[in-house]
Order: sequence, then C-alpha cells, then structure tokens
Amino acid sequence: MIRHPAFEVEPWALRENRLDLDVLAQTESVFALSNGHIGLRGNLDEGEPHGEPGTYLNGFYELRPLPYAEGGYGYPESGQTVVNVTNGKLIRLMVGDEPFDLRYGTLHQHERVLDLRAGTLTRTAHWSSPTGTSVRVRSTRLVSFTHRAIAAIRYEVEAVDRPTHLVVQSELVANETQTSQGGDPRAAAVLRSPLVAEESVLGDGLSIMVHRTRASGLRVAAGMWHEIDGPDGTLTEAQGSDDVSRVTVATRLAPGGTLRMVKFFSYGWSRRRSRPALHDQVAAALAAARLVGWEGLRDDQRRFLDGFWDGADVEVEGDAEVQQAVRFGLFHLLQSAARLEERPLPAKGLTGSGYDGHAFWDTEIFVLPVLTYTYPRAVADALAWRRSTLPLARARAGQLGLRGAAFPWRTIHGEECSGYWPAGTAAFHVNADIAHAVAQYVDATQDETFDGRTGLHVLVETARLWLALGHHDAAGRFRIDGVTGPDEYTAVADNNVYTNLMAQRNLREAAEAVARHPALAAALDVTTEETRGWREAAEAMTVPYDERLGVHPESEGFTQHALWNFATTGPERYPLLLHFPYFDLYRRQVVKQADVVLAMHLRGDAFTPAQKARNFAYYEALTVRDSSLSACTQAVIAAEVGHLELAYRYLGEAALMDLADLEKNTVDGVHMAALAGAWIALVAGFGGMRAGGGRMCFAPALPAGITRLAFRLRYRGSLLSVSATREATAYRLLQGPPITLTHHGERFDLGGEEVTRPNPPRPAPEQQVHQPPGREPRPRRPHEPGG
Amino acid sequence: MIRHPAFEVEPWALRENRLDLDVLAQTESVFALSNGHIGLRGNLDEGEPHGEPGTYLNGFYELRPLPYAEGGYGYPESGQTVVNVTNGKLIRLMVGDEPFDLRYGTLHQHERVLDLRAGTLTRTAHWSSPTGTSVRVRSTRLVSFTHRAIAAIRYEVEAVDRPTHLVVQSELVANETQTSQGGDPRAAAVLRSPLVAEESVLGDGLSIMVHRTRASGLRVAAGMWHEIDGPDGTLTEAQGSDDVSRVTVATRLAPGGTLRMVKFFSYGWSRRRSRPALHDQVAAALAAARLVGWEGLRDDQRRFLDGFWDGADVEVEGDAEVQQAVRFGLFHLLQSAARLEERPLPAKGLTGSGYDGHAFWDTEIFVLPVLTYTYPRAVADALAWRRSTLPLARARAGQLGLRGAAFPWRTIHGEECSGYWPAGTAAFHVNADIAHAVAQYVDATQDETFDGRTGLHVLVETARLWLALGHHDAAGRFRIDGVTGPDEYTAVADNNVYTNLMAQRNLREAAEAVARHPALAAALDVTTEETRGWREAAEAMTVPYDERLGVHPESEGFTQHALWNFATTGPERYPLLLHFPYFDLYRRQVVKQADVVLAMHLRGDAFTPAQKARNFAYYEALTVRDSSLSACTQAVIAAEVGHLELAYRYLGEAALMDLADLEKNTVDGVHMAALAGAWIALVAGFGGMRAGGGRMCFAPALPAGITRLAFRLRYRGSLLSVSATREATAYRLLQGPPITLTHHGERFDLGGEEVTRPNPPRPAPEQQVHQPPGREPRPRRPHEPGG
Repeated sequence: MIRHPAFEVEPWALRENRLDLDVLAQTESVFALSNGHIGLRGNLDEGEPHGEPGTYLNGFYELRPLPYAEGGYGYPESGQTVVNVTNGKLIRLMVGDEPFDLRYGTLHQHERVLDLRAGTLTRTAHWSSPTGTSVRVRSTRLVSFTHRAIAAIRYEVEAVDRPTHLVVQSELVANETQTSQGGDPRAAAVLRSPLVAEESVLGDGLSIMVHRTRASGLRVAAGMWHEIDGPDGTLTEAQGSDDVSRVTVATRLAPGGTLRMVKFFSYGWSRRRSRPALHDQVAAALAAARLVGWEGLRDDQRRFLDGFWDGADVEVEGDAEVQQAVRFGLFHLLQSAARLEERPLPAKGLTGSGYDGHAFWDTEIFVLPVLTYTYPRAVADALAWRRSTLPLARARAGQLGLRGAAFPWRTIHGEECSGYWPAGTAAFHVNADIAHAVAQYVDATQDETFDGRTGLHVLVETARLWLALGHHDAAGRFRIDGVTGPDEYTAVADNNVYTNLMAQRNLREAAEAVARHPALAAALDVTTEETRGWREAAEAMTVPYDERLGVHPESEGFTQHALWNFATTGPERYPLLLHFPYFDLYRRQVVKQADVVLAMHLRGDAFTPAQKARNFAYYEALTVRDSSLSACTQAVIAAEVGHLELAYRYLGEAALMDLADLEKNTVDGVHMAALAGAWIALVAGFGGMRAGGGRMCFAPALPAGITRLAFRLRYRGSLLSVSATREATAYRLLQGPPITLTHHGERFDLGGEEVTRPNPPRPAPEQQVHQPPGREPRPRRPHEPGG
Repeated sequence: MIRHPAFEVEPWALRENRLDLDVLAQTESVFALSNGHIGLRGNLDEGEPHGEPGTYLNGFYELRPLPYAEGGYGYPESGQTVVNVTNGKLIRLMVGDEPFDLRYGTLHQHERVLDLRAGTLTRTAHWSSPTGTSVRVRSTRLVSFTHRAIAAIRYEVEAVDRPTHLVVQSELVANETQTSQGGDPRAAAVLRSPLVAEESVLGDGLSIMVHRTRASGLRVAAGMWHEIDGPDGTLTEAQGSDDVSRVTVATRLAPGGTLRMVKFFSYGWSRRRSRPALHDQVAAALAAARLVGWEGLRDDQRRFLDGFWDGADVEVEGDAEVQQAVRFGLFHLLQSAARLEERPLPAKGLTGSGYDGHAFWDTEIFVLPVLTYTYPRAVADALAWRRSTLPLARARAGQLGLRGAAFPWRTIHGEECSGYWPAGTAAFHVNADIAHAVAQYVDATQDETFDGRTGLHVLVETARLWLALGHHDAAGRFRIDGVTGPDEYTAVADNNVYTNLMAQRNLREAAEAVARHPALAAALDVTTEETRGWREAAEAMTVPYDERLGVHPESEGFTQHALWNFATTGPERYPLLLHFPYFDLYRRQVVKQADVVLAMHLRGDAFTPAQKARNFAYYEALTVRDSSLSACTQAVIAAEVGHLELAYRYLGEAALMDLADLEKNTVDGVHMAALAGAWIALVAGFGGMRAGGGRMCFAPALPAGITRLAFRLRYRGSLLSVSATREATAYRLLQGPPITLTHHGERFDLGGEEVTRPNPPRPAPEQQVHQPPGREPRPRRPHEPGG
C-alpha cells in the first residue's frame, strides 16, 4: 500500500519528492507513460533498482500452455501473455568509476513529476556517489500521442562541484530478467526469455534490433537514435549483440558542466510483416522523429493534451485530492486509448503485466463510457477491435454449440484465454456489455459509418448469441440459465438480473440497428423472422423478483441462500476468494461487486425508484467490494437514491484505487476501470448524468465535501459545460448545435445562452443502509491544497 | 470394444480361445487377479505383447502436482496416482534362439481361462517359432485369498516334436515402461520412473528388491523364489541389478519333455517400516508360501471360494450370458475386497490404472451393498478405512469452512485429489453415501463392535457436516445449496433431491447411533442440543417438487431448464462431456446417470408409487447413461414400476459393461460398480430386495428372458436362499436363526421349512417410457449355452 501522502496533492500533476523503494513498483505503474500503442512503465532511467521492468506493445503477446488438473471440452489450451519487449528507455550512468544507483551513495534530492498537461514524466536527482562525487540528473520522458511509434527521453547530467568523468550507456535490451512469473513452471519457462533474436544492426548512429516470439510467432523491431551535446572530447561509440544494443558516451565535465542527450526510440510489431519491412518501418519512424525534433515532439504533446482537456476536464472544488485523482484517471484513460487503432484496451492499459495484459468486460462498461463522452474516437477504435475479432468469437460460439458470437472473457488477440470457465466463459454478459458500448457510442456520436459497419455487425452477432443461449419456458418466459453475472461470488446461476436486462437491451438494439440498415443487415442474413424472435425474447425476458423481500434477487434463488457469516470473517480474510473456496462463496448471499446495483445504473429504466432504494439497501449489506469495479457503481446508485455522503465515500475509493493502492496490486499496473470510476462517480453520480435515445439528462446533487463540480462532455456534436454548486447548476454550450437537456427531470433547450437551474432539495432517504462489518467505505478527509 | 463372442459363455468360467491383440488390454483387465491387497493385470507371462503392464498394491501411490490454469482457494495441490510396482509375474521364454512372442511365428492353439471357483487364471499355448520349433506352454496363476502377500505361477513348457533348447528368465522388474501417462508432461515425468532403488539382493534362491517412491516416500519390497523341475543338466543362475532381478533356467528338452517351474512371489509396502523390516517381511511371506506349497495354495484358494459361493451365488436360468456375467462380477468384487484390511476399494479394484486408482462414492453405493449381503467382513474393512481417514476428512471440512468430516471425492490415501471442484468437492453426497453404507452394514450384520467404533464416529462427523453445509431459510425449511448430486451433467445446484434425502437419512441415522451409544457419543462431544439439531434439520429437509409436472426436479429449478436437443446430437457425440462444454450440459435438462432415480431406490420410502412411476418416466427421457453407474439403478426402478422388459435390458448393460466393453474403457480396468450392478439389477431389481430397519423384503417378478432367478444372501446372522420363477418364490433358511421376511408386502416367518409364495400378477404399467433417441438400452438376445 502506498502510504499517504506519497504524492503531493496538486491539480495538474502527480509529484513525488521522496524515493521510497518499498513502493517503487507501484510508482512505476502510476508514472507509466503510454499512447495506447507503446507503454513504458515508470522505471528509473538507469534500470535499477526496479520493481518490475516493463515495456509493452499493445497486442504483442506470447502463448503459454494452460494446464488443467482435469480437462474439459472447450477449455482453452493456451493463454496469451503480454510480453516485456525490448527496453528502449534504459540509460545507465557511470559517475567516475561508480554506477549511478540510488541504493548506494547519498540522494540529496529526488523528484518525479507526471505532468498531466504536458504529457511528460520528468525526473530530477541530486546524488553523491559513495566516494563523494555529486551529479544532478534531469530527465524528461514522453511517449508521443501524435507520433504513434515514438518515445523519447531528454537526459542531462551536470557535474556539481568537481571535475567528473561520466559514461552514459543508452541501450536497447531484449529478454530482461523479470521479477515474477507466477506459479506455473512451464509458463515461467516460456516467458523467461520470450524473444528470439533475428537481427541486431548498428550504423550511422541508428541501432535496430528485431526479435520474434517463440510460440506466437510475432515479430518486434526496436530502434534508437541519439542527439548528444557534450563538451569537446566527448566520445561516442556503439556496440551490439543479439539482445543488447548500446551507445556509449564518455565525457569529462568541469564543475557546473552538463552532458545533454536526447534519445529517440521507436517500435513496430507485426504478425505478418517481414524482418526487413519491420526494420525499415522503425527506421522511418525514427527519421520522422528526428525531423520533428525534441521540442517539436514536446510541443505536439502539449497541444494534443490541451485539445483533450478542453473537451474532457472535470473540476472538483472542495476536495483537492479527488480533483487530482479524476484528472490523473482521465490522463491514464487517454494514455490507454489514444492510439489504439484496432487493438484491445487492456484492464491495466499498458502500465503493467497484471491479468496477463488481457482485456475484459470492464473496458466496455467502465472505460468506454467515459471516453464516449470525452474522447469518442478511441471508442470507435476499441470497438473496431472487437469487430475485428468477430470471426474468432463466432468460432468460439460454434465450439460452445451456440450461434452468433461469443466474445472471450479475457484475451489479447481474441481467443478465449480464461482457464476457469465458471468465472470466464460462463460470464456471457460480456457480449451484452460490448453491445451496450456500441449502442452508447452510436447514441452519443451518431457515427453512421460506425453504426452500419462495426455496430450493426456486433449487435447482430451478439443478439444471435442470446437467442441461442436462452429459451422460452413452458409459460413462454425467456430464460437464460447457467450463466455468471458481474458478481463473481455467485456463478453459473439462472436468470441473473444484470445479464437478462443487458441481453434484453442487446436484443432490442440489434433489432433497431437492423431497422436502420436493412440492406447491410440482409447481407448478414438477418431475416424478419430473426428480428421478430429477438423482439419476442426481449419482451418475454425473465427478470426474477422476490415478492417477500421486495427486492430483485441477483439471480434465481439467490435470496433463499444462506447469508455469509460476516461476524466470523476477520479483516485479514479479504478478499474472500483468497481465503474461502468458491463453492462456499457461490452458495451464499455474499457479493463481490455491484451486480443488481450495476443493472440499476445501466438499466435504470427497468426499476422503480422504490425498488432502487430497496435493492440498494439490500445489496449494500452483502457487498464486500473485493473488486475494484464496484465502488464507482455503488457511488452512482447511492447518489441516485439519496445517500450522498455514502456516495462521496465510494467516490473516494474509486478515485484513490491506485494513488493509494487500495487493492494492493497497483504494482501490476493501474486499474483503468477504477480510474474511469472516479469520472463515473462524479459525473453520473453527483452530476446525475444519464444518456440514451438521444436524451442527455442531469440531476446534480453534491455531497458536503464538494462545493462545486464542473465537467465538460460531448454529445451528438455538441460540447457542453455543466457546473454545479450545492444550490444550482449552470449549463453552457461550448461548441456545436443547440441541444435539449434534462435537469432533474425538467427539459430545457441550451443554445448560446448559459442556463442556470436551481438544484431541488434532496431529503435524506428513509431507508438506512449498512455494509458488511468492516467493509464500510473509508471516510473522506477532504484534503486541502498544499496540505 | 470387445467383439462378441470374445469369451465363451459358460457358467463358472471366463474362457478365451483366440488371441486378439486389438483387445489385449481389455482382456488384461477382465483376466486380472487380485485379493484386494495385490493386483496383477492379466498380462501374458512373457510380458510382451501387452496392452498395459500392471502390478498394483492397494494404497501404494505416488504424488504428482495438480496444475491449474487459474488456481483457487482449497484446490488440491497434488494428486495421488496408483503406481505400477515391481512386476513379479514376468517369465520370459527363449525357444532355441528365438523369443517366445506370439506376434511372431505361428500360434496353433491359445486359451486363457479365469476359473471362478478355482480362483486361477490358466493359459495354454501351442506355438511354433518362425524357424518351426514347437512348444506347448501351460501356466496357472493365482493371487492367494488366504495368504495376503503371496502370488504364484505354475509354468510348464513342453517340447513338441524335436529336441529343443529352452531358456526361461523369471524376473522382478521395477519401473517398467508404461504405455500411456495422460497429457500433463509433469505428471508423466513423475510417473515414468516412480521407484528409486534401495536394495536388490540375491541369495539361497531368494531374490528381493526394495524401492521407494520419490515424492510420496512409500517403500515397497518384492521377492521371488522358485521350484524348478527339469531334466538332468538343467542350469539355474540368478542375476540382479537395481531394477531387475532375474533367475535364468536353461535346459534341453527331448521331444515330449517338459520343464516345470513354480514361481512364488510376494509383496509388502509401508510408509513407516524400514528397508530391513520390509525385506524380512517379504522373505517371511515367501517362506510361508514354500511351506504351504503350490498345491496347498491352490487348494486353499478353492476352499476359500467354495465358502464364498455357498453364501453368495446367484443362479439365472434362461440367460446364460447374464448367468456368467453375474458370477464374473461377484468374483471381481470379492477379488477387490477380500483382503482390504483398512485400505480403499478403488473404482477399478486393482485391475488397471483407470481413475488414477482412486476410490469414489460408487464403492459405498454400489459395491458395498452387494458385499454387505454376501461377504460382509470386507464391508467392515472398507468402512474402517474410511474411518481411518477421518482426521484428513475433518481437516478438509475445516479448510472448507465447515464442521465435521468432508470425505474426498476421489483419493487413495484420504486427501482430496479432485482437480475440478464442481464435479468433485461440491459432490458432498459422498458423505451421506458413506453414512448409508455404514447404516446398511450395521442393519444387516448387527455388528456392535463396528457400530460403536467405526459406525458411530462416521455418522456423527458426517451429520455435523450436513448441519454446517445446510441452513434453515426464512420459512424454516432446511436447504442444502450449491452442491452437485450423482448426475454430473448438473452441478452446483440447490437442493438436489438425492443429496437432501440421503443427508436426511444421515442425520437421522447419526441421531439413532448416538442414542444407542450415549457414552461413546459423549466422548465425541455430542450433546443433546446437537442431536436435536440433526433431527430438526432432517425433519425440515427441503425436497423440491414440481407441482405442474408432478415430478421431483433433480434440483431446484431443474425442470425449468431447456431440454437437451437430442435430435441434433448424433451417436458419435456421446459421451456428451467429451463433445460439449460443461456450461451447456449444466444448464439443460440432460442427465448423465440416475440421480432422482437412485434416490427412489435408496430412499424409496420418500416417494409414493405414483411419484415413482412419473419420475421414472420423466427421467428416462432425459438420461443418456454416459456413466457406467446408471444402468443397474434404472433396472431396479424400471422393475419396481413394472417395466420388466426394460429392466431386463438395463440388467444386460450393467452385466456386460466389461465383458462387452460397453464404455470402451475396460482397458483401464474393470468397473467394480457396474459389476456390482449386475447383482443389484437381479436381486434388488427382479428380486425386489429391500432391507432396512431389521426388515428384509422381496417382491420377485421376472422378465420373459429369465425363467428362474435364485440367490443367496446373509442378513442378521441368517443365510437365506431365494428362488423365484415367474409363478412363485421359494424361500429357504440355510443357516442361522429363523427370520421374518416380506414377500410382495406380506410378512411371513422363515424357519426350518421352505416357504413358497405365489408371485402376484404384474399388469403392464400405464405409463409408457422412452429414452433419448439412440440411447435406448440394447435389446437382450438371450444367449444359449454353447451358442
């Protein structure tokens, strides 16, 4: 866990001014840079000490065998694991005859700053070697948003108080030693040295290495080029071997003298392109980078971010910590998504190797909704990736005896990589989640090209899946049996409320998309009978309800199960899945993460206000939040049913998931969905934002800790600004055509004039709620700026 | 599959007179010899050709890692696998300068006979080598029922028509090459050479080898000693190395001359005893065997079997094939159980390495009921083994967060070895099954020592488990949620009817055992409150019932699930679990094996006759019999509800499971439960035998194919003979005190006089039944003797 305050609280940056090796791995995740194609963990320039070295290329993976004590039909035989590719950020430094290593000598000053507007990670160190030679090191690193294949580092060393010999070794290193590889020795063997050298060449200051993975057969090229500015007599030479390419710069600095270097490095990978083609691709990218130069890259980066923040910023007054966290979150979302270009958006982005680098349903349900209203082109990219995997998803459905498409629970390339089907393949809701993201994006953007091409295809194939997966019972009700909903503490159950409601929407959205694009639909062999079947199934969808309790059971029979014995479950036994068997979790009323509550957010139309209040109270008492995906949804519904202070606590948990390492696994990468959750809790929670069917609604209501909440978002070509205080909300149209909005249920037109509406008083809710003992969300202590 | 007729149909033997290498592995299983301690597959004396070499010692196993693609709390980390120990049955023969190998040369005559009264496997061969030298080989092999550690082979070679040089090499061989080891390379590595040599000594004609397993640390000693009778000039010498001990006999036979040899071999194993102690134990056993001599062993064997058959024989007139099969089955049951002595009774006995040599619930539910009424002392042994594993079962319950004992789904030593919990740990009914076997044995034998010692302890700890596993719902009903019943095509469901009814009996039997042994129960900390809790839970037990259909759903919600699409499921897609994912099987109405139907057999008191008829018809249409455990139970209930001809077909399937290799896996060993099933189908099915609470009831009714059915069984110290024709049943008391019996519901006393009662007419049942298309039991073609 990152002890507070690990980072300074400030509005536009994440700043560390003390090096704590105990949380080095966590800081590598939060200081990671990425553009959605290249990801660099925030490893120190000199490589060591490190928590976990990491350089990732989106979509680049190695295969490893998935073993089973007892196999079964349809179990995936191999998994895909993100590979730590050639490290291009490594710059070693020798001071006199001692390596610059912060574990030795004296670190007088240390600072790392992730600048959310500049899009750079800067680092300064004032260090004396064990023999007393002092240097100042300053580096600035960026992964370019505007040049997809390029990263760059500006690196300076200054001799402080005596003449100093320096040697800088700037490297490309493949097959770095990894810290951990999990328990399976065969997997570890595969990943210990995943890259087979194909080429390592030097020439004209350019170093290029090409490698290939053993099993997946993917090829990766990395290249580097340097600008060096040192005193006369500075020597430069280059060496290379299969797995290391090195440029060595030796110089002697007078006191106050400085060696400056800019390192440009570039990556390309491909399944199909040849070694020479990849080599040339990387060389070309480096040539373009040299043309733009360091200043050009830096300026482009800022301009790109200015544009992003103009349409996406969220202002939070009264809680500086949350202010910082929500911008930090938006920045990482943008980093994970900006240059996706038909690649997946993994749960950890490209910030760590957690979850094997896989993408899950949380991308569609938590990350893409934020991007839909702030950076929609990334959503089109992410969903185009899903569409590109349709042949694999159709094949998987066929293997499972179904029709349509069965998207994988977890994957990099598109094949199912889940090795435990009750919490993997059985979680068919992922298909409705993807369909939801498609429909939401089309609603928000009216992107007709996408709608007819990507959207229709995904909606049709997922609707086909639901019709094959469910059946009409003797009474005519449409049932979906034996599936797993979002709550992973119940599995393989009948008629999960979330799944059925999302499938219902999926079926209807598919029928509507077909109606919008009859010719394109005909090309997919969609018939009138088929869409009638979808509409009938949606109409007859089973949504179980417990009349006795007046609540929706998470799935059929759920409310008859035994309650979890929270009284005898000590705090050290969370997360429960690490301390109790699945069988025990599955058969009791204990909830890992919002499930019915998530359904109430995404399908609010299917519940009455009274049902929402009762369901929320019922599930609050059962939900342990052993998943990072829960707090933001609980915030949204807590706010909707009037528990504003509780919502505020949940906001804090979502927002600080990684900055405070609440789940204790930020070491493996940041939690994109939780980072998105800060925005969701603020905008959908306290802003009351709901959109769909061409309507954009707000219902702002602030907790005591937030005095003003303002956010910008895009909807159907308009850029809006919403600014709420406790008393009133001001709406402004910043760009685009006039738009009709809803404020606390009242519709109004927004054009050139700012519109202000009072926020109605919110009486305290009648129903008290409580959480399982010890699982209450932690209270927010509003953090004063500079405090 | 063994093509018919592979074996001659005769009443007291299994005879093969043609060598078919395609089914060699299957014949090795059916010709296996065992006494429950030592098991020898029916490999040819000369070792090759072979299907799978096999020599097993009950309880002797190696550990191997159980891998998981995604692990979980409480998953077993290592499995136990039966080991092919030192092979003592190997006798190689060199004829002239050519090895006696039936794949070469000409086999003029071949016969193998398993004699069910002699307890021997005899083999004769008349063979000419490729160069034309002819020999006759005769061998007789036995594993002694009366000398637990001893096996012996009488081996003769006769020169037929010319002077012939012979060399016989009689061996002990450790770490034989195995044919197959499954898919996991790590497991294969462990089991490729499981035995580490500790000692190999020769002296005074005695050869002894001691080995130890690498991981489980078990020690095994094997020894051999020979009597050799050959012409003058016969040479004998012995050699040994770590893994091979060899006695070589070289002789020259005149035409018609014979070399005779008797090989005695012996085994001992231990977890604790030292190398010298085990060495001496084996040497002592061999000394005892030499004292008794071959003829003595052979005569003891027959006397032992005469005694067994006197109390256990079943006569079937009209169907010679079933007559042979039921005796074959009883013989293998006896072989698996005779000398258990607190060791498990595995699903395949000691006839093959199938299921890793594990014991499952089928021992208690199918095998022990037969032995309870035919050879009860083995039942006491088998259940004493379960009792000896109580500390492990209690620890497992604790690990799972439960109280009492959670016996393993599959094991050799007592630890859970199931690598797939939904069809392993979740099948908690195994605990009630063990309790059922305990109660049935106590009812049948009134063995008070067992009752107070083994029985009470097992009943108390299993009752505790059920109370921890279930809970009273808001309406006060006792529910058992999230468990798996016998039908493995539905898993992790609520209120499985079989499980709940068996748990109900378990709770009641435990309370009654406590009432019988208050002092012993107090020593187990049983209180009045605790037994009251058991009785209350039993009283309030949930037994779901579908009022609309008038049937018991296998578990809650089962009858609302979609039906399996049998129309599109071709015959090549059975067993379904190899061609469809679990998720699809679990959520549909498709039944692997009798579940509600088994409950109707074992808890017939809980169903009305009309319910039995409706339930049977309902589940017949859903049951695919992908398990060898189903046919006999379907036979029993088909007979009870009046479908006698259908019952007769199921009898045929159970009886011929291994003789006709119906499941195509007899290669891995014979199916003890199916072999028991032939007896169950005959005695409980057509004999209508039900026992419990001191009452023994019969209701004989024969199908057209059986003209007379007679069986003997033991109950409360009495040995009964029951002989039924279509018209009437004759009851005789062969030994023991007079007894009150029930014939078709009418009670009568049986003393010295034979009692004959007419069998009431059985009208054809009203309800027609059908099976899934293509899954109908195959018609019986009554087999004429000699036909």
